[in-house]
Amino acid sequence: MQKHDPQPEFALITPDAPVKTPTHGWRAKCLQRLVRLDMPVPQTVALPAATVRAIAQGHRIDAHAILAHFGDAPLISVRPSPENPDFGGPATVLNIGMNPARHAALVTRHGAAAADALWLRFIQSYAIHVARLDPDMFHQTTPGETAIREALRAYATEMEQDFPEDPATQLAEVLRSMARAWEGTSARLLRQAKGAAPTAGLGLIVQAMAQGIGQGISGSGVIQFVDPVTGAPQITGRYLGQSQGRDALSRTEALYLTQDPRGPSLQDIAPDVFAALVDHGRRCRAKLREEMQIEFTVEDSQLAVLDAVKVQRSSRAALHIAVALADDGIITQPEAILRVEPRALSELLHMQVDPRGPRDVFAKGIAASPGAATGRIVFSSSAAQASAARGEACILVRRETAPEDIRGMHSAAGVLTERGGITSHAAVIARGLGLPCVVGASTLRLDIKERRLAIGDRVFAEGDIITLDGTKGEALVGAVDMLPPALDDTFRKLLSWADAVRDIGIRANADTPADATTARAFLAEGIGLCRTEHMFFDEDRLVAMREMIFADTPADRAAALARLLPMQRADFIELFEIMHGLPVCIRLFDPPLHEFLPHTREGLRDLAEALDRPLSEVTRRAEALAEFNPMLGMRGVRLGVVLPEIYDMQAQAIFEATVEVNRRGEAVVPEVMIPLVSARREVELVKTRIDAVAAAVRTKTGHDFAFKLGVMVETPRAALRAGEIAQHAAFLSFGTNDLTQMTYGLSRDDAGRFMNTYVQQGVFPEDPFHILDVDGVGELLHIGAERGRRTRGDLTLSICGEHGGNPESIDFCRRAGFDYVSCSPYRVPMARLAAAHLALNDQRNG
Amino acid sequence: MQKHDPQPEFALITPDAPVKTPTHGWRAKCLQRLVRLDMPVPQTVALPAATVRAIAQGHRIDAHAILAHFGDAPLISVRPSPENPDFGGPATVLNIGMNPARHAALVTRHGAAAADALWLRFIQSYAIHVARLDPDMFHQTTPGETAIREALRAYATEMEQDFPEDPATQLAEVLRSMARAWEGTSARLLRQAKGAAPTAGLGLIVQAMAQGIGQGISGSGVIQFVDPVTGAPQITGRYLGQSQGRDALSRTEALYLTQDPRGPSLQDIAPDVFAALVDHGRRCRAKLREEMQIEFTVEDSQLAVLDAVKVQRSSRAALHIAVALADDGIITQPEAILRVEPRALSELLHMQVDPRGPRDVFAKGIAASPGAATGRIVFSSSAAQASAARGEACILVRRETAPEDIRGMHSAAGVLTERGGITSHAAVIARGLGLPCVVGASTLRLDIKERRLAIGDRVFAEGDIITLDGTKGEALVGAVDMLPPALDDTFRKLLSWADAVRDIGIRANADTPADATTARAFLAEGIGLCRTEHMFFDEDRLVAMREMIFADTPADRAAALARLLPMQRADFIELFEIMHGLPVCIRLFDPPLHEFLPHTREGLRDLAEALDRPLSEVTRRAEALAEFNPMLGMRGVRLGVVLPEIYDMQAQAIFEATVEVNRRGEAVVPEVMIPLVSARREVELVKTRIDAVAAAVRTKTGHDFAFKLGVMVETPRAALRAGEIAQHAAFLSFGTNDLTQMTYGLSRDDAGRFMNTYVQQGVFPEDPFHILDVDGVGELLHIGAERGRRTRGDLTLSICGEHGGNPESIDFCRRAGFDYVSCSPYRVPMARLAAAHLALNDQRNG
Repeated sequence: MQKHDPQPEFALITPDAPVKTPTHGWRAKCLQRLVRLDMPVPQTVALPAATVRAIAQGHRIDAHAILAHFGDAPLISVRPSPENPDFGGPATVLNIGMNPARHAALVTRHGAAAADALWLRFIQSYAIHVARLDPDMFHQTTPGETAIREALRAYATEMEQDFPEDPATQLAEVLRSMARAWEGTSARLLRQAKGAAPTAGLGLIVQAMAQGIGQGISGSGVIQFVDPVTGAPQITGRYLGQSQGRDALSRTEALYLTQDPRGPSLQDIAPDVFAALVDHGRRCRAKLREEMQIEFTVEDSQLAVLDAVKVQRSSRAALHIAVALADDGIITQPEAILRVEPRALSELLHMQVDPRGPRDVFAKGIAASPGAATGRIVFSSSAAQASAARGEACILVRRETAPEDIRGMHSAAGVLTERGGITSHAAVIARGLGLPCVVGASTLRLDIKERRLAIGDRVFAEGDIITLDGTKGEALVGAVDMLPPALDDTFRKLLSWADAVRDIGIRANADTPADATTARAFLAEGIGLCRTEHMFFDEDRLVAMREMIFADTPADRAAALARLLPMQRADFIELFEIMHGLPVCIRLFDPPLHEFLPHTREGLRDLAEALDRPLSEVTRRAEALAEFNPMLGMRGVRLGVVLPEIYDMQAQAIFEATVEVNRRGEAVVPEVMIPLVSARREVELVKTRIDAVAAAVRTKTGHDFAFKLGVMVETPRAALRAGEIAQHAAFLSFGTNDLTQMTYGLSRDDAGRFMNTYVQQGVFPEDPFHILDVDGVGELLHIGAERGRRTRGDLTLSICGEHGGNPESIDFCRRAGFDYVSCSPYRVPMARLAAAHLALNDQRNG
Repeated sequence: MQKHDPQPEFALITPDAPVKTPTHGWRAKCLQRLVRLDMPVPQTVALPAATVRAIAQGHRIDAHAILAHFGDAPLISVRPSPENPDFGGPATVLNIGMNPARHAALVTRHGAAAADALWLRFIQSYAIHVARLDPDMFHQTTPGETAIREALRAYATEMEQDFPEDPATQLAEVLRSMARAWEGTSARLLRQAKGAAPTAGLGLIVQAMAQGIGQGISGSGVIQFVDPVTGAPQITGRYLGQSQGRDALSRTEALYLTQDPRGPSLQDIAPDVFAALVDHGRRCRAKLREEMQIEFTVEDSQLAVLDAVKVQRSSRAALHIAVALADDGIITQPEAILRVEPRALSELLHMQVDPRGPRDVFAKGIAASPGAATGRIVFSSSAAQASAARGEACILVRRETAPEDIRGMHSAAGVLTERGGITSHAAVIARGLGLPCVVGASTLRLDIKERRLAIGDRVFAEGDIITLDGTKGEALVGAVDMLPPALDDTFRKLLSWADAVRDIGIRANADTPADATTARAFLAEGIGLCRTEHMFFDEDRLVAMREMIFADTPADRAAALARLLPMQRADFIELFEIMHGLPVCIRLFDPPLHEFLPHTREGLRDLAEALDRPLSEVTRRAEALAEFNPMLGMRGVRLGVVLPEIYDMQAQAIFEATVEVNRRGEAVVPEVMIPLVSARREVELVKTRIDAVAAAVRTKTGHDFAFKLGVMVETPRAALRAGEIAQHAAFLSFGTNDLTQMTYGLSRDDAGRFMNTYVQQGVFPEDPFHILDVDGVGELLHIGAERGRRTRGDLTLSICGEHGGNPESIDFCRRAGFDYVSCSPYRVPMARLAAAHLALNDQRNG
C-alpha cells in the first residue's frame, strides 16, 4: 500500500529542519535542540509518526534514500522517539549496516576482537528484535569467528534465508519491525496507562554510529549534573573505554567521571573531553531549561553527543531541580510550580525507605499514610505506651484500631492493621498524626493472645524489629536505610510561590493542639474540621463521659457534663491561641455513645465499680446502647436533639473560650458545625439552644462576641435539602467520607474486604474513599452547593474529610465555587501546590 | 364594628332557602334536607359563618329579629354547624328564653318539678358555657327552688349583675360566646389537625325547642338503623320519657326502641311514633344517601326530628354500609369505594381486640403489624416451636429478632420485642406473615436467662397469658374479647369494584409458598419482591450454606452450592406454580454471609465439628466476616461480584424451574433482580454471567425461555446513575427501605431509639420508614425514574419495600409514572383500594 503524505517521509535534523515534537517525537526535537546548540551530534535523520504508521501498515520506505545521508558503508542506529518519553517504545538497534564486508574493514581498522564483537552483537540484536527469533538461540556472548558462524547458521535455519547483508534491507526491516512493535496490544496498553492518546504515534531516529572503539581514547558513557535522589548539584555518570551505547552504566569496570580516590576517571584520562562535556551540560541546562542526562561517545578523542534525556529523579530531587532552575532565572516560578507533582510532596514530609537499599517485604497492604518507620512490634496500645515510656520506637500491630487505641497510636512510630481500608479508623488517625500506616494487610494472621504475628511460615513475636513503608504499603523485616524528611527552605520557597497563584482556601483538619501546631507550620489558613470527640478519651474525661452516659435524669447528665466543661474550655482556648485568630471550625459531638463504653467483661466490671451500680445494670445498659449499624445510628445531631445537654456544654465551652481569648487580644470568631444533619428542623432545634447559650455567656461575662453556625453535609438528604437547611446555616461543609458511605451504601470500615477486587475488575474506577466519586457523590455536592447558594448567596462552602487534600477534589471544589478545602495537616502542602497547579493550568488554557 | 355583608345575616330554613354547606355548615344543610323530606323539624334559623365571625369580632346581631321567627315567649336551642362535623365546635345550649315568667308558665303547664329542672339546667349551662364561670359553683343537680335561687345568686355575685331575663339578651350572649369559642387557639389547633383550613368558619343553628316534657307521651331519644360495629341492618338507640337532648343515651332507665325481653320499648308504648321514626330513617338513608343517626323528641305524642348525624362506625361497619348503599342503588360503586378508608381495611384482615371490652395494658410500643392474638409468653424460638407442637398459641417475646428466629415466628401467634422500629426485622417478617406485632416496647425489661419479663413492678413468667394488639401497639394482660376477621363477600365485592377503576399495578412481596398463596388470595398481580435468602435458613440448607461460606476454593464453593441447587429449583417451581403465570420478581441473594453463622460459642463449636475444622479456625473466620455496619457491607451485588458462584447457582435454579414449569404448561417469564447496585459495571458483570447461565440451561434442556434482568435501586448512587444502569436493566425496582436508610444515614434497626422523640418534636413529620419521605427519598425516586426512562422508554418502574402499600406511596408512584407497587401480602387489599381512591379523585379533580 502506497501512502501519499504531504509531509516528507523523513527529515535530516538540521537547525532549521521542520522537526516538531507532536510529529517527530520528543527525542527528535531534543536532538534538534542539541544541534542548534552546536553540539557534536552525529548525522541524524528523523522519521515522523505518519511515516512510521504507514510502514507498520505495509508501506515500503526507500531505505536507500535514508542511507544516502550517511555516506558510504555507513553504520547507523535506530531509536524510538514517541511524543512523550514516558510512552516507552521499542528497543534501540545499533550497528545497522554491519555485514561481512564492513566486518572485514573493521578488523583492519580496530582489530578482530572489536570487529567480531560488533558483528555478533548486531546479528543477535537483529535476530531477536527484528526477526523475533528465540533469544535462547542467540545467547552466545563470547565473540569470535565460531560464534558469528553459529549465529548466522541459526538465523538461516530458522528464517529459511540467509542473514541480510544489504544495509538498505537491514534498515528497512528494522524500521518495519519497530513500527509494528508500536502497534502491538501490550505496548498500546502500557503507553495508554501513562496517559497516551489511543492515536499516539511513534517517531523514529536514524543516527550515524559514533563507535566508541578506536586506537586513541575511545569509549562511551553518560553524564548528569545533579544527584538523582537529592537533586543537589553533583556530576554523576560512568564512562567505559571501547564500548557502545549505555554499556558503561552496567559494567563494574566503568570509570567515574570526576577525579575519584577509587581509581582513574574520565577527568584524569581525558581532561579536554571532560571539560567539553561539562560545558555541554551547562548549555543544555540553560537552553533546554531542564537537568539533562547526556549520552556520549568518544572516538579517537573526538566527543560525540548522541542523546540527552531528562534526568530521572526522586520527588525531592524534582523539587530542588525546579526551584534551582527558577532561582537561576532559567524557568519562571509558575513553571517551577508546575514541574513538581503535588502528590510527590507528601513523600518529603516524612522519613522514607531509601529506594537504593535492599527490601525484605513480608506483608503488603493498603498504603494508608505515607512515610516510613522502624520499631519493635507491639500488639496493644498499653504495650505501645510502655514502649514509648522506655524511649523505644514501636510499631503497633492490630487487627483494626478503635477509638480506645488512640493513645497507643500517639505512642507508636507506625501502625499496621490486618483489616480496614483507606479511610478506616487507623488510616484516618495515622494520617492526622503523620504516622506511617499500612492497613488491610489481609495475609497477616494475628494471635493477640499469644502475642504473635504469622504470615505464611514466617512468625514474628512482640519485640521483633520491623520497618513499615506507609508510602508503598509494605511491611519489611528488620531496620532498613532511610531518607530524612525534606522540609527545607527549598520546600517552603516553592510553596510560597504556589500560595501566590492559588485561588481556593486550604484549611487543615485538626483535633489536638499538636495537629493545630502542625497545621500552622504547614501554613493552613485555619482549621476546617476540629472533631471534638477525641477530647473525651483521656482517662479523667472518660470517667465523666461515662457518668453522663449512665445518668438517669437530665440534671444528672448536666452535672457530669459540668465536670467536662472546664476541660473542653481549656481545649478550645489552647486551639484558638495556636491558631492566632485564624478561623476554627468546631464540629459538635458526633460519635455514638457506646464508643465510650468498655467492650470487655473486665472493663464493664471496672465501670460498674466506678459508677457504684450493679454489673447487671451496667451490662444491660451498655448492651442497650449497642447498635446494628453504628454509622447510621444514634450519633451526630441526633444526640444533639435527644440529649441536648451535650451540645449545650460544648457551646458554652466554645463561647467562654472565645471570650477568654478575645480578652487576651486575639480576635476569634468560632465556627460551630452540626454533624449528620438530614432535616432542616434538626438545625433549627440546635440553633435555638446554641443561640440561647451564647446569650447566656454574653450576659454572664459581660462580653460580646460573634460566632458562625453551620452544618456538616454528610447525608444525601442534607445535600438534597440544602436549600432549606441553608436558611439556618452560615456555612455548609461537605463531609465526603460519610457522604460517600451513604451514597454508595458502603461502610468504609467494611469495604476493605472487596475494594481491591472491585478496583481491579474496574467496577469502581478508583476507591471512592480515596478519590472523590465525581459522578455520584460529586452530583450531590453540586446539588447541595447550588441549592444552598440559591438560598444564601454568601454561604461559605467547603469540603472536609479525607478527600479534601486530593488534587482531584480540589479541582472539583474550585469549579463548583467552593471557598476552601480542609484536609489532614500533613496533606496541606500537597493541597497548596495542587491548588496552584489548577489555577495555573486554568490561566494557560483559558 | 358594623359589618356590611351582601349575604343576609341569617336565614329561616325552608325547602328553598339559600342554605349551603360551605357557608352555613353541614348541620344547617342536613336540616334543610330533612325539611325538604317533609320531616317534622322544628322552626330553625341558620347563621352563616360570615355572620358568626362578625359576631366574634364585636358585631351585635339583632337577636329580636331572630326571635321573631319563634313566636311569643319562645324556648330555643343553639347548635354549632361547622363545614365538616369532624371540625368540632362549641357545646349546644338548650332552653334559651327561660326566665321567671316562662318558668311560671311551665309550672302551670307541666308541674314544678319539670319546670324547675329546665330552669336550673339553663342557668347552669348559661353560667358555665356563656359567662364562663367556674363549673364547680354550679354543680348542684337536684332541681328545686333553693337550687335555682343559689344558682342565680352565685351568678349575680360573680358577674356583678343579675342573670339576664330578656330572651334577646340571652340569645345574643349565647351567639357571641359560641362565636368567640370557635376562634380560640386550642379549638383552632384541634380542627386543623382534622384537616380544617385556617380560615374555616362556623355556622350556627337556632332552633325552637321541642320539649320532651308533657302530659301525654313525651320524651327524647336517638335512633339508627345499623349496628355500629358490624354495619349489619339493626335498629339501635334509646328513648327516655320526660327528657331533652341526648340524655337517653347516658341514662340506665332509658327504654330500648324495638320490642325487647328486657323491658318495655318505644315500640310498645308508642307504636305510631316508632313506625314514623322507621319511615323517616328509611327516607333519610335513601335521600341523604347515608346511614344517619336521628335525634328526636316526642311532645304529647307529637314526633319532632331535631337533627340527624352520620352514624359513627367501625371500619368493618363502614365497609358494609358503603357496599349496602351501592347494592341498593343509593350511591354509585365509585362512591362506595371512596367511602371506605384504605388504611381501615387492614383491620379487617385480622382478629381485633373488641373495642367494647376492658383493656389492661401493661406495655406500649410501635404498632408494627396489625391484628390481635392471645397466647402464652415464650422467650425463644425453640419454646415457640414446642408450644406450636403442643397446639398452644404463644406470643414470642424477644429483645429483637434475627433471621434465626424466623421458624419461631412462624410458630407464634404474635411477636413482642423490646427494640426495633417499624421496619425492624421483627416488624417486616410479622407483616409478611400477617402476625400481630408490637416492637420497640422499650419499657420492657427482659431477663431471657431467668425467663422473666418485667415492666415497672409487674412481672410475667414464661407461660403467662397475654394479648397483643398489633393495631394499637399495646400488650394486654390475659385474654380479652376479640372480633374475627371480616374477609367476607362484601370485602371482596368492594375490592373488585376498586380493581375496575385502579390504574397502577399492585404486586406482593412474597418469599415463601405461604406468602405467595396469601398474595394470590388477595389478588396481587404478581410477586414484586421474592427475597431468596430466607430459603437458606432451613436446617439442611444452612449446613450447605455454611460449607459454602467456609469453602477455600471456588470449586469447593461451587460444590456446596450444587447441593443447594435442587432445593432452590424446587422453591421456584413451587412459587411459579402458585402464581400461575403471573410475574415473579426474584431478588438474588442479598444479606451478608455472617448472618448464616452461629453467634454463640456453642454454635461455633457445633459448626467446627460439622465442618471438621479446628474451632480456632472457624472462630477466626467467623470473626473475620463480622462487620461494623452490616447494612453497608459485603452484601447484595458485592457478593455477586466477589463470589459469583452464588448468583450462578441461583440463576440456574430459576431457569431450570422456568423450563420445568413451562413444560407443565404455565408460561413463566421470571424477573431476576440484582440487589444493592451502586455502579453500572456491577450490573454488566452480573448480567454477563447470568446470560451465560441462561444459555447453558437452554442448551442443556433443549428448551428456550425468556427472562428479564433488572436492578433494585437501594443506594442513592444507583438512583443518580439510573441513566447508565438502565442500559443493562429491563426494570428498576426502588427498594425504599434501604434507600431511606442511606438517604438519611439512618439504620432502621437503630432508629427506634430516637424516632419517637424525633416525630414528637416535629424533626421528621413522620417516621420516614413508615411514610415515604417525598422531599428527600422521593426526589431520588424521581431522578432515578426520569433518568432510567430517558435511557429506555419501556423501562418497568416499581417500588418494593415497606412503603409499597401506603396510600401516600401509591399516590407518589402513580404521579411519577411507575408501573406497579409491591407490598406485604396483607397490605395488598389496602393498596388496591388506595389506588382506586387516587384514580377516582383524579377523575373528579381533573
